[in-house]
Amino acid sequence: MDRMDPAARLNRTLERTHPAAFRGLSDLGRRIYFPVDIPAQSAEARGCAINATIGEVTDGSGNPLVLAALRERVPDLDPKQVFLYSAQGGDPELRRLWGARLSRHGAVPATLPLVSCGITHGLSLVGDLFVDPDTTVLLPRPGWGNYRLIFGVRRGGRVVPYNVVTPTGLDLDGIADALAQVQGKALLLLNFPSNPTGYSPSIAEIQALVALLVAHPGPLTVVLDDAYQDMVWEPGHLPRSLFFELANADPGRLLVVKLDGATKELFFFGARVGFLTFLASGEAGDALTDKARGMLRATVSAMPGPSQALVRAALQHPDIEAQRAATLAEVQRRYHALKSAMHEFDLPHLPFNSAFFALVPVKGDADAIRRRLIAEASVGVVSFQDFGALRLGYGSLRLEDVRRLVEAVRERI
Amino acid sequence: MDRMDPAARLNRTLERTHPAAFRGLSDLGRRIYFPVDIPAQSAEARGCAINATIGEVTDGSGNPLVLAALRERVPDLDPKQVFLYSAQGGDPELRRLWGARLSRHGAVPATLPLVSCGITHGLSLVGDLFVDPDTTVLLPRPGWGNYRLIFGVRRGGRVVPYNVVTPTGLDLDGIADALAQVQGKALLLLNFPSNPTGYSPSIAEIQALVALLVAHPGPLTVVLDDAYQDMVWEPGHLPRSLFFELANADPGRLLVVKLDGATKELFFFGARVGFLTFLASGEAGDALTDKARGMLRATVSAMPGPSQALVRAALQHPDIEAQRAATLAEVQRRYHALKSAMHEFDLPHLPFNSAFFALVPVKGDADAIRRRLIAEASVGVVSFQDFGALRLGYGSLRLEDVRRLVEAVRERI
Repeated sequence: MDRMDPAARLNRTLERTHPAAFRGLSDLGRRIYFPVDIPAQSAEARGCAINATIGEVTDGSGNPLVLAALRERVPDLDPKQVFLYSAQGGDPELRRLWGARLSRHGAVPATLPLVSCGITHGLSLVGDLFVDPDTTVLLPRPGWGNYRLIFGVRRGGRVVPYNVVTPTGLDLDGIADALAQVQGKALLLLNFPSNPTGYSPSIAEIQALVALLVAHPGPLTVVLDDAYQDMVWEPGHLPRSLFFELANADPGRLLVVKLDGATKELFFFGARVGFLTFLASGEAGDALTDKARGMLRATVSAMPGPSQALVRAALQHPDIEAQRAATLAEVQRRYHALKSAMHEFDLPHLPFNSAFFALVPVKGDADAIRRRLIAEASVGVVSFQDFGALRLGYGSLRLEDVRRLVEAVRERI
Repeated sequence: MDRMDPAARLNRTLERTHPAAFRGLSDLGRRIYFPVDIPAQSAEARGCAINATIGEVTDGSGNPLVLAALRERVPDLDPKQVFLYSAQGGDPELRRLWGARLSRHGAVPATLPLVSCGITHGLSLVGDLFVDPDTTVLLPRPGWGNYRLIFGVRRGGRVVPYNVVTPTGLDLDGIADALAQVQGKALLLLNFPSNPTGYSPSIAEIQALVALLVAHPGPLTVVLDDAYQDMVWEPGHLPRSLFFELANADPGRLLVVKLDGATKELFFFGARVGFLTFLASGEAGDALTDKARGMLRATVSAMPGPSQALVRAALQHPDIEAQRAATLAEVQRRYHALKSAMHEFDLPHLPFNSAFFALVPVKGDADAIRRRLIAEASVGVVSFQDFGALRLGYGSLRLEDVRRLVEAVRERI
């Protein structure tokens, strides 16, 4: 039986050890498992004198036969890491390094992070595992447009937007109302620091939010999109991921999944190295990891070697935190310049304190204003048409351009 | 209307211009489209004096602010290509180069290749676009185990295996029987050179196969997994992908999709750079590309920068074909050594002439024999338990180990 139906075995384990995870699974989430196929057989043959399991071309001693045209461009990276398949679920050493990095912020019962192909892929995997057409998916409004494509269009979930911020801070009432309306199973996506608002909650707001979540009857899958973690420019706001505040959530009601990655955290946008970590341990953690690895196998299989090798090298570099701090300080200078110019020109805006975005509410057609800014002032911003706002992204702004940006927007709203 | 329902607009275009593609779409395939969201708005703002659309950290002039710990490892690659997001659908120059590479084999009405995160991702996208629970999915038997996970477990398709080879060559009757049983819409996966058989059809077999396909009433989506293309070691077999032989397929009945990539073709297994190309052009090609880009956006979004930069550099390298030829010649030497040793030891095998696999049929428990080979002879092979065969992969075999491998297998079957 165990051999015949590996998915059912995982489901039984979750039903017993983490009922919220079990009840939250989609139909596909119930079906999926990590198959014992060729990668598993290859793993058993590791160390054999003759290894004819491998679907790769090597020299027979485990070293890749690399074309010089490729090799000469990356002489300082390990050819095995770059040119051969990495282990299913991601490079084990990279996973260990990221797990260690997370644990500096607190000790919680978490799985070893799995590598996803960017945070989008992590979101997509979570959608596959936990969203069906009858699943309520609570998405931030305003929020990243791709959430709707991933959870609504792609998985067909019943998307219910909740309001993120009020003029004074986190919209706790909005989140509470959305949670209260849930019938059946639900997924709540939280994104702090937030894109596009640039807002991160205060300590008091975090306490109130966590109280709301842990009181929810469930089954509720809480997905933390922590893409911008650490990019908080004001003291007293979001000192660490909500993941750590939810460590004691009842597995009978809540499942918490953390998504983060090198994309913003190492300013390595092209990497497509994300991580997926469950707030679960023991048998529950193993079963969830197995399901997620199965979904990884069925969507992308191995993760990109050069990106993983680069992120691994960076995490092992002795100066990595000093280098990050220097770039973070540069972004923070742009943040302060923007705040200051907004004050000077009296530009209305929603509260923001983190990441590299600020929202300017506009009356009338936001997209028309966006197009006028391009045509008349050679200024590009992003419009959130349904929300009636413009997003100013300051991650790529020169300090000397900030006042001109604010002035150009002020004149047209 | 056009603005309000972009998916319906694409569906109407396909219904008119490529009925087989339209009728082959899954429910999800009908829903998906490429949204005009932030990447599109960023594209419109390109060239602005001040660009505040960007969700990246740059110096304000389009150059990434790269951590030295990352930069110092890849001094010979363009930082923009490596560290910033690539365009949705993949790096345009890389797509152009791969398209040009394909067109050397023949002029066919094809879309510009989209970049997928490895060929697995291409298969997964095709499953998302064209497979529902009521879709018949004809999969090769024996075949790569992940096909079943992708199309059967993940998409819930009605998997029907067809036999690939007989002791004398391609099993045309097996394929014909499988196609004749199809009711409603179907997807046929063809994988030549084949994993795990290592077989590629002869010219006469290709003609018969193509005749079968073009006569099918459809709607039939023909998916060509061309991972191992060009790795054909015997003259008179598969001189080029079946893609080119299907150029005149009737769009009222057939849709042809080609999947290939750097994985095996550049011996760059860690890259996760695959390509997805439709046999379609004009409005149909644009609509299919838009659907596939939407699915890319909802699964992985941007593709890995370092891998794309490396593949692009390799494709532009003047010696790339000479370098490939040298490695192909090495694999071919292993092929001949294996053929010779099999003859010497009279080891039964199915026909093989390409890629780097050979199948040895066994009586009894294939997996037990596999485990005995590890335990008794320190020899690793892959078992295909349901098919009753062992796969010998010679891509990673030293020439001097080939006889010992064959002898060890011969003694135990």
